Amino acid sequence: MYLPEQIDIVEVGPRDGLQSLRKWVPTEDKVRMVDRLSQAGFPVIEVTGFVHPRVIPNLQDAEAVCERIARRPGIVYRGLAPNARGAERAAAARVDEIVGLTIASASYLKKNQNMTPEQADAQAIEAFRIADAKGLRYVLAIGMAFWCPYEGLIPQDRVQAMVGRFRDAGIRRLYLAGSVGMEDPRHVNALFTRLYDRYPDIELGFHVHNLSGMATANIVAALDAGAAWLEGAICGIGGGIAMPETLGAVGNFPTEDMVRMMTLMQVQTGLDPDAVLAASRDIARLLDIAPRSHAAHGSTREAVMKWGREHPHEHPA
Amino acid sequence: MYLPEQIDIVEVGPRDGLQSLRKWVPTEDKVRMVDRLSQAGFPVIEVTGFVHPRVIPNLQDAEAVCERIARRPGIVYRGLAPNARGAERAAAARVDEIVGLTIASASYLKKNQNMTPEQADAQAIEAFRIADAKGLRYVLAIGMAFWCPYEGLIPQDRVQAMVGRFRDAGIRRLYLAGSVGMEDPRHVNALFTRLYDRYPDIELGFHVHNLSGMATANIVAALDAGAAWLEGAICGIGGGIAMPETLGAVGNFPTEDMVRMMTLMQVQTGLDPDAVLAASRDIARLLDIAPRSHAAHGSTREAVMKWGREHPHEHPA
Repeated sequence: MYLPEQIDIVEVGPRDGLQSLRKWVPTEDKVRMVDRLSQAGFPVIEVTGFVHPRVIPNLQDAEAVCERIARRPGIVYRGLAPNARGAERAAAARVDEIVGLTIASASYLKKNQNMTPEQADAQAIEAFRIADAKGLRYVLAIGMAFWCPYEGLIPQDRVQAMVGRFRDAGIRRLYLAGSVGMEDPRHVNALFTRLYDRYPDIELGFHVHNLSGMATANIVAALDAGAAWLEGAICGIGGGIAMPETLGAVGNFPTEDMVRMMTLMQVQTGLDPDAVLAASRDIARLLDIAPRSHAAHGSTREAVMKWGREHPHEHPA
Repeated sequence: MYLPEQIDIVEVGPRDGLQSLRKWVPTEDKVRMVDRLSQAGFPVIEVTGFVHPRVIPNLQDAEAVCERIARRPGIVYRGLAPNARGAERAAAARVDEIVGLTIASASYLKKNQNMTPEQADAQAIEAFRIADAKGLRYVLAIGMAFWCPYEGLIPQDRVQAMVGRFRDAGIRRLYLAGSVGMEDPRHVNALFTRLYDRYPDIELGFHVHNLSGMATANIVAALDAGAAWLEGAICGIGGGIAMPETLGAVGNFPTEDMVRMMTLMQVQTGLDPDAVLAASRDIARLLDIAPRSHAAHGSTREAVMKWGREHPHEHPA
């Protein structure tokens, strides 16, 4: 099992978390959230999305958020821009990085965005060209890269062909997203391995969801195959299918658990797990949400040792 | 990342699950539980424990359970026997395999069993000799093999030395248990690798807990390093520290999730994930407990696709 010495943890909560929250978060609270994440030290923060307000009403204040956040030197502030119009707006709002989006499932694209794969891919390439012309970093998300609720398993050949086309267009940084979190470690490991074998000059990230409970296994599988960064959301907000709670719906993997796991595995992230946990507590309070992480519920080595000191006569069964 | 073609899933619920349940389960229900697990097809079932009834009152009917279960040909019925007296009782009750127990943390052993490591190890070897003399299979559990709430990280040298001593005594099959589930994948992978490198003629299993949320990563890490079997408990019963619920206490990893994960990873177990899930539902009803698995809460590919068919216009965020 290969583990890298160092990876980046990308925090997507302000965009991917807030976009599906069932309430409006005032601009000033969004700014506080991003500033708190900057303080915790995330190297990349996805701040907002430049999409039509009718499509994602929660992110309609994208420009205002970008205007008011306190930018820390060295941190990459990222904005989602699925098309040319979004990329122009993102550039005007002075993001450091644009993230584009396409989907490996035609059925999902049709249902969700009423687009064909060709249309989505063309829009992503247009957004990339604008980012490139303006000297901004660009990364492309490939959603439903492993498994889709409508199509089931996504053929690896299809994802490889997509990556090849984007690479031909000049895109070198992409990330694979399970999107519903039902992927399995063998598949994750195989797809990352295949893409790096075929295209050694690209850089791949992994956007982690946890509906299946196998997220940590998928993380290890992705790292083993060379994933260069991981994406998650503070408190595990967002990214969940709108499924009933009886389905145990869980979405984005919490960054406070991700950082802790990397630290335990001696994979450097430049982040302090306790500082990130403190940020998750502050943000949970700010947004009035219950964090979904193990760390926030005390499943940390420190908490268990404290329990041990306070309960010298009880014991694990 | 290496994955084996085949592994065994060992079901420990009737012993490790019921021993810490906060209620008495009548003998006839224990028998029903074991029979239901036999019907699901587990290759090894840990039926009960031969310990003093004052120590584990819930298992005081060990002989009666062994007498009344319907033994299926090919299934290994296992009994816990921590010492010579237990091994004699287990043999008389016609178990197929005896599992012994020692602990890699002296602090834990002292607090929990008021024994020294030397005493615990000597008892385990006595139990092994009895099993061996009677032609029974024997496997030795090493608890707290990675991390202990009282001692923190357990040095790998210590576990290696223990395994070496047991191997010198003739024991070739052992399993490593995190016991509280706070181990991390790098450590798990490293310890399995080291033990197999040093002692190529032993066979190692991994007893999986999930307090940290990293159980699936630890499973992948153990398999990558050659773990020959995995141990879990139906419905995830038992194995939890007696911690307050706010600590998110979770214990044994549910076998219904374990089998499903192996199937998705194309690791053969000889078990049908749907049959195991059905068994978990029946056993949850029998014991009047809430199953802790993802599968029981509908986080399966089948359930998510069914949701997709029924909600064609909603979509994952």
